[in-house]
Amino acid sequence: MKDLDFMARAIKLAKKGQLKVQPNPMVGCVIVKNNKIIGEGWHMEYGKDHAEINAIKNCKKKFGAKKALKLIAGSNVYVNLEPCSIEKNTPPCSNALIEYQIKKLFCGTLDPNPKINGRGIKLLKKNGIETSVGLLKNECKELNRVFFTNQKKSRPYIILKSAQSLDGKIALQSGESNWITNPESRKNSHHIRSKVKGILVGRNTAEHDNPALTVRLTKNELGLAKGEAIVQPVKIILGNLKKSKKVNKIFTDNSKVIIGSRQSAKKSKNVEYLEYKRKNFLEEFLQDLLDRNISSILVEGGQKTLNAFIANNLFDELVLYTAPMFLGKGSKEALSVNPPGAIKTSIKLKMVRLERFKEDIKTTYYNNNL
Amino acid sequence: MKDLDFMARAIKLAKKGQLKVQPNPMVGCVIVKNNKIIGEGWHMEYGKDHAEINAIKNCKKKFGAKKALKLIAGSNVYVNLEPCSIEKNTPPCSNALIEYQIKKLFCGTLDPNPKINGRGIKLLKKNGIETSVGLLKNECKELNRVFFTNQKKSRPYIILKSAQSLDGKIALQSGESNWITNPESRKNSHHIRSKVKGILVGRNTAEHDNPALTVRLTKNELGLAKGEAIVQPVKIILGNLKKSKKVNKIFTDNSKVIIGSRQSAKKSKNVEYLEYKRKNFLEEFLQDLLDRNISSILVEGGQKTLNAFIANNLFDELVLYTAPMFLGKGSKEALSVNPPGAIKTSIKLKMVRLERFKEDIKTTYYNNNL
Repeated sequence: MKDLDFMARAIKLAKKGQLKVQPNPMVGCVIVKNNKIIGEGWHMEYGKDHAEINAIKNCKKKFGAKKALKLIAGSNVYVNLEPCSIEKNTPPCSNALIEYQIKKLFCGTLDPNPKINGRGIKLLKKNGIETSVGLLKNECKELNRVFFTNQKKSRPYIILKSAQSLDGKIALQSGESNWITNPESRKNSHHIRSKVKGILVGRNTAEHDNPALTVRLTKNELGLAKGEAIVQPVKIILGNLKKSKKVNKIFTDNSKVIIGSRQSAKKSKNVEYLEYKRKNFLEEFLQDLLDRNISSILVEGGQKTLNAFIANNLFDELVLYTAPMFLGKGSKEALSVNPPGAIKTSIKLKMVRLERFKEDIKTTYYNNNL
Repeated sequence: MKDLDFMARAIKLAKKGQLKVQPNPMVGCVIVKNNKIIGEGWHMEYGKDHAEINAIKNCKKKFGAKKALKLIAGSNVYVNLEPCSIEKNTPPCSNALIEYQIKKLFCGTLDPNPKINGRGIKLLKKNGIETSVGLLKNECKELNRVFFTNQKKSRPYIILKSAQSLDGKIALQSGESNWITNPESRKNSHHIRSKVKGILVGRNTAEHDNPALTVRLTKNELGLAKGEAIVQPVKIILGNLKKSKKVNKIFTDNSKVIIGSRQSAKKSKNVEYLEYKRKNFLEEFLQDLLDRNISSILVEGGQKTLNAFIANNLFDELVLYTAPMFLGKGSKEALSVNPPGAIKTSIKLKMVRLERFKEDIKTTYYNNNL
């Protein structure tokens, strides 16, 4: 096996922590001696041991504490992200690697947090450990898109989602919009919900559609074990509700709700109101969401809300479900952003996935590279 | 091998005649004795021998005329389309099958032409030959979608093509539309051009874009042998040209041009003017195109022309290239049909292919099943 293979293994392990580790990054670690894996582990849950510690523990479990100590000394360690150098919930991993006297550390990327970036590597070097940064760099960044976005942009990772007809419409003039996409597409969209920490809709959509904003999939469909609970995303509303009596599905089941608006509102159980003075408070609101550990959000509409995110270039991913029908002229457009001055200056996205759900298609685009 | 396998082989052979046989259907034929193929052939070119005759010839070539006669007697014959029973360019194939005393004929579908439909089978039955109709029926129909459409609808097979942004637009308000899609998509669209007998645009598009309407691919890209010529589709314009001096690329290279309109126009070399009295002459025009052996057309725009075909439900296939950009509100819509009264009554298409050209996607839909 080559260095690349060991790093690929570390990435694979890291993915096992998906969602449970947010707002932490997913991290996997592989310890190698004489070209053989002697220990491996991953960060399993926020607040619990980091990947490096789990890999050391795994080695100890396999070989016994005494032999493990000998084996790890002089070993190569592969980890997708720079080992931490500061104490937060757990002792810093860099210290452990130094203590166990590893020979060389391969890490995929440095920590994106400008305050930490490179500090772990510096510490290791200072203690005589060889280091190599950048192995499978793109794959390592892709793995932690959410974390990198949080760190670099101080806001949640933002996914915009819309459904539309072939001609880019979302509803007839009558307002009728149920259903454009088919049941398979709609079910798939619950999988996106299950991967984010919050679901955001605009005030109008909340009042007009009275959505539940919940993940409605079985544990089996979500790949959860029997004992594991389905974690529902926080429900987020942009703008103050005027006809709040019409909106009842959002406020059930003890769900946590956050409402961001310019007006003050009376407090109620499980609902947090965030008030802003500025007219365009979107960026400020997003920062506040990240402060509440909401590291990723799915923006589901309506058009005005989606446009606000696009107009402010506040999105990382766009998911479009397109149904094989025409809603025709005069029907409501799914998106209606300001036109560019020229074609070459228009926002260009990068396609990352193309999927098919019977006659519907789902296209996933990235807005920009990290 | 099973009956299904032999029919699949016949379909595979039939495809070798693609384009060269239009307006005839593609037909392949396999002759089987004691579960072994003793002869096979396909219709290679319009006006030349039919598949059944070529399969008999192939058997004679393999085994000599005398032995072939003995072998074919009592054999099973597999052919994707009902053998013809009338003399047109060649003697009817049904007669040959009777003459050679085959035992049983398997055919995928009956001839769609209501005047012929079932006559070949009847003739064979009358002469003591067993028959089975319907083996791989759907595949056989799909193979000859163009021919079935010609026969059943008395018009060319119609493919509508459009390019659009994610929000369903084709040009900015300034009229700028070059280029929305990428070079790979645009190249692919020439492959569609190469598979049809005619390319149609509306008068406005002809005058505004001054298109060449030619297949611009190499022989290699088209899969043609050195000796084979690239057959350019007929250029078709819907509506009379008002500023014909601005349109010069269409009228070069001795290309054949057909213009259909309500006004009379002076005749010129290589240009045929078809005049109509009725305002909505589209259906009549299409019938006239089929009469001129134009069995398939690609409609490339503009919006008004595409809408006319959709509004009259005169299309069999829709190809959409979608580029990963927004052209925004107020930009020109790629398609702008009349809205349906309700979502459930809107035209629903069937997706048949989903392709990707770098960041662009290409979706191919059928309008209806034959």
